[in-house]
Amino acid sequence: MSESARRGGQGRERLVVIGGDAAGMSAASQARRLKGPEELEIVAFERGHFTSYSACGIPYWVGGDVHDRDDLVARTPEEHRARGIQVRLRTEVTEIDPARQAVRARDVDSGAESWTPYDKLVIATGARPVRPDMPGADAEGVHGVQTLDDGQELLGTLTRAGGTRAVVVGAGYIGVEMAEALIKRGFRVTVVNRGSEPMSTLDPDMGRLVREAMEALGVTMVDDAEVTEVATGADGRVRAVVTEDAAYPADVVVLGIGVRPETALAGAAGLPLGVHGGLLTDRAMRVRGQENVWAGGDCVEVLDLVSGQERHIPLGTHANKHGQVIGTNVGGGYATFPGVVGTAVSKVCDLEIARTGLREKDARRAGLRYETVVVESTSRAGYYPGASPMTVKMLAEHRTGRLLGVQIVGREGAGKRVDIAAVALTAGMTVEQMTALDLGYAPPFSPVWDPVLVAARKAAAKVRAS
Amino acid sequence: MSESARRGGQGRERLVVIGGDAAGMSAASQARRLKGPEELEIVAFERGHFTSYSACGIPYWVGGDVHDRDDLVARTPEEHRARGIQVRLRTEVTEIDPARQAVRARDVDSGAESWTPYDKLVIATGARPVRPDMPGADAEGVHGVQTLDDGQELLGTLTRAGGTRAVVVGAGYIGVEMAEALIKRGFRVTVVNRGSEPMSTLDPDMGRLVREAMEALGVTMVDDAEVTEVATGADGRVRAVVTEDAAYPADVVVLGIGVRPETALAGAAGLPLGVHGGLLTDRAMRVRGQENVWAGGDCVEVLDLVSGQERHIPLGTHANKHGQVIGTNVGGGYATFPGVVGTAVSKVCDLEIARTGLREKDARRAGLRYETVVVESTSRAGYYPGASPMTVKMLAEHRTGRLLGVQIVGREGAGKRVDIAAVALTAGMTVEQMTALDLGYAPPFSPVWDPVLVAARKAAAKVRAS
Repeated sequence: MSESARRGGQGRERLVVIGGDAAGMSAASQARRLKGPEELEIVAFERGHFTSYSACGIPYWVGGDVHDRDDLVARTPEEHRARGIQVRLRTEVTEIDPARQAVRARDVDSGAESWTPYDKLVIATGARPVRPDMPGADAEGVHGVQTLDDGQELLGTLTRAGGTRAVVVGAGYIGVEMAEALIKRGFRVTVVNRGSEPMSTLDPDMGRLVREAMEALGVTMVDDAEVTEVATGADGRVRAVVTEDAAYPADVVVLGIGVRPETALAGAAGLPLGVHGGLLTDRAMRVRGQENVWAGGDCVEVLDLVSGQERHIPLGTHANKHGQVIGTNVGGGYATFPGVVGTAVSKVCDLEIARTGLREKDARRAGLRYETVVVESTSRAGYYPGASPMTVKMLAEHRTGRLLGVQIVGREGAGKRVDIAAVALTAGMTVEQMTALDLGYAPPFSPVWDPVLVAARKAAAKVRAS
Repeated sequence: MSESARRGGQGRERLVVIGGDAAGMSAASQARRLKGPEELEIVAFERGHFTSYSACGIPYWVGGDVHDRDDLVARTPEEHRARGIQVRLRTEVTEIDPARQAVRARDVDSGAESWTPYDKLVIATGARPVRPDMPGADAEGVHGVQTLDDGQELLGTLTRAGGTRAVVVGAGYIGVEMAEALIKRGFRVTVVNRGSEPMSTLDPDMGRLVREAMEALGVTMVDDAEVTEVATGADGRVRAVVTEDAAYPADVVVLGIGVRPETALAGAAGLPLGVHGGLLTDRAMRVRGQENVWAGGDCVEVLDLVSGQERHIPLGTHANKHGQVIGTNVGGGYATFPGVVGTAVSKVCDLEIARTGLREKDARRAGLRYETVVVESTSRAGYYPGASPMTVKMLAEHRTGRLLGVQIVGREGAGKRVDIAAVALTAGMTVEQMTALDLGYAPPFSPVWDPVLVAARKAAAKVRAS
């Protein structure tokens, strides 16, 4: 007897969604577009206070570029409810039972628990910031910035802190964006980084350009530093970030050392996890081996189309696509998510940072030999006002010349040029083919040879000569 | 007996280049990189005073954004000569004799003529502005803006004009860019346009957005107007532009009604011309049927990879690529120019205008059935400061869903997004495939669904539903 039958035999199915942000609520909304409430009941559980918000916008809210928290909310619980989606806020799912097709949920405030049966399940539990296992990691004044609730708590601390010293642990996207946000709020900022250069999603030679920009901004960059302890005062509040070599006084600490897929529930339910701890799905975003369970967003691993390996890439744009694909399939349509090429852009003040495809170490790890070139060019025709320098690094496969990756550091107009390479990677183009790309040219937009074309020309020459 | 043998039997070949701008001098420079002066003599004839300049930059020079004419010159005759390229300025080639392998050239100032034999010939004669066959079209004060010499003459007129009324005939790229330039110089500007909307490289519904921006800028737009006469005063200077319905007073007139391939010489020599009057070449940019004659730049037709038909697209970026390909082949290497997808970007004040692929009428002309969508989105996340609206129109082939074209009108960050579509067109992607593209996302760069992805989603849905 199926669950829907057990619930009264009316043929109305129930979709349960775990997680109320991008992937989960996109899936719910798209399923609702395809199936009305008479066909499909939708229940979404969300542990926090908010739905469908832009976690990527938190640094700009903290930094003051975005004034109102609600601006980050694309769709409120009330708006979802008006569309026939039951949203249960402050309700944490504590167990998934795939055999019984039911989830157990706990009211965070009252502690009350109950089971909810489902016909179809979407797991969109997101990711959690890595909290190093060391003394003080959970002290008052130590913050992650993964959820809107996290952002709200951090802003509370910043307002109350009564200090001016901030330490950011980690120098990836979140780390550098939060460093800028804290500078804007008048803090003296130190970034403590385990690697040799910030932005380890770039090769170190490109990361160095980011460091120079950060230092020019007044941020103190500490590299090759492993944090061993967060020192606290008698009041339990953070006092300093301690490494093997030094202690950095801190009135507030922001953790930007990455996130891990939030898959404890899924793992406990016996669902398949990959080497990065994320759920494994098929192309339709169905959990592998499951008929009626889908997963998407920051809790899944995605196929890297360039390396052919699975990766964990927590990014709102993927989460939204996953939700769209899941909702379409749950709603009886057909859609797939073929994979990613690893595109990311970021901004620190007026510095634009972009990457797609493989870094040198990714290529080596994938067993690929490659050629690299680095070119300096400008965002516009050299004679046009506002032309600014940009650096483009390109990797091409040895012999075949297939594009493997592009990294860009520059000013206005630099970052989104990475999209050219993202599409070329998706299409499997060679750098030789790229030299003939018909890209938009006019003096306010590009030199007559777009910087990406210049890099492709040089890369093609290097492939030929090798 | 070959020409080189006739010239002394030393085995040194002579390359003759007709035209000293982008295509010609890129070809000469690239050939020189591959072959030294001991192997290859290079002689370039240029009718004007300049070499290797950015004709695309002329509107910005006239408008004052670029202060110095020399900023538009990428490489001077002296710089070319220092690299072992003989540049003969103010020397016009008046005849090509492919049978004898020689060209006749005339010194523009002295009128002296002489024949120069060649082993290899590059025809890069460019394009000439269309001058309507009507009274006054050559009057003093009527200017094209095709060459640096043209720009210099126009600036002379603007300085001396003693008036404040400018009429631009034509509302394509050159027309709208020149309208802005003239506004910046304090002129009252009227644009007289034969079509119903400006920018006929866009569909009229998108052209309308450009009109609105032009009018907001203070430009008077006259549509559906055929110019019948340029009225002149007793001094022979322009007084007004006359249409069937009205006369528009003018102290200066700029012709922006397009250009034609400058192929009189090539045609007289019996070389093959296409339906648009441009030279026809193979993929290596060799003139069809010729062993040792190449052609590139504004004087050739190019293959449109989307429609499968030849087009004439005068654009510096193509000319440079042609030159690169020709120079490589002339120098003994191998390179091809596979064709174009018809990408173009332009800017009028802060309005960015972009297109690639086919317009609706191009698709019809190519025998293609299509679906269209138009979406409104923003250049950045809606909550991020500086987010501005942009409109994206997308054409997809009926049934197959193959991307056929994209048009974009918006503000900062809108125009170069067309490159995404340019690469997708080159790769032959469907709009369904495009929905999964891994484009750069962060709030300062894009909404979580890039506007191009939104258009692709809607287009894919329309294809499915049709």
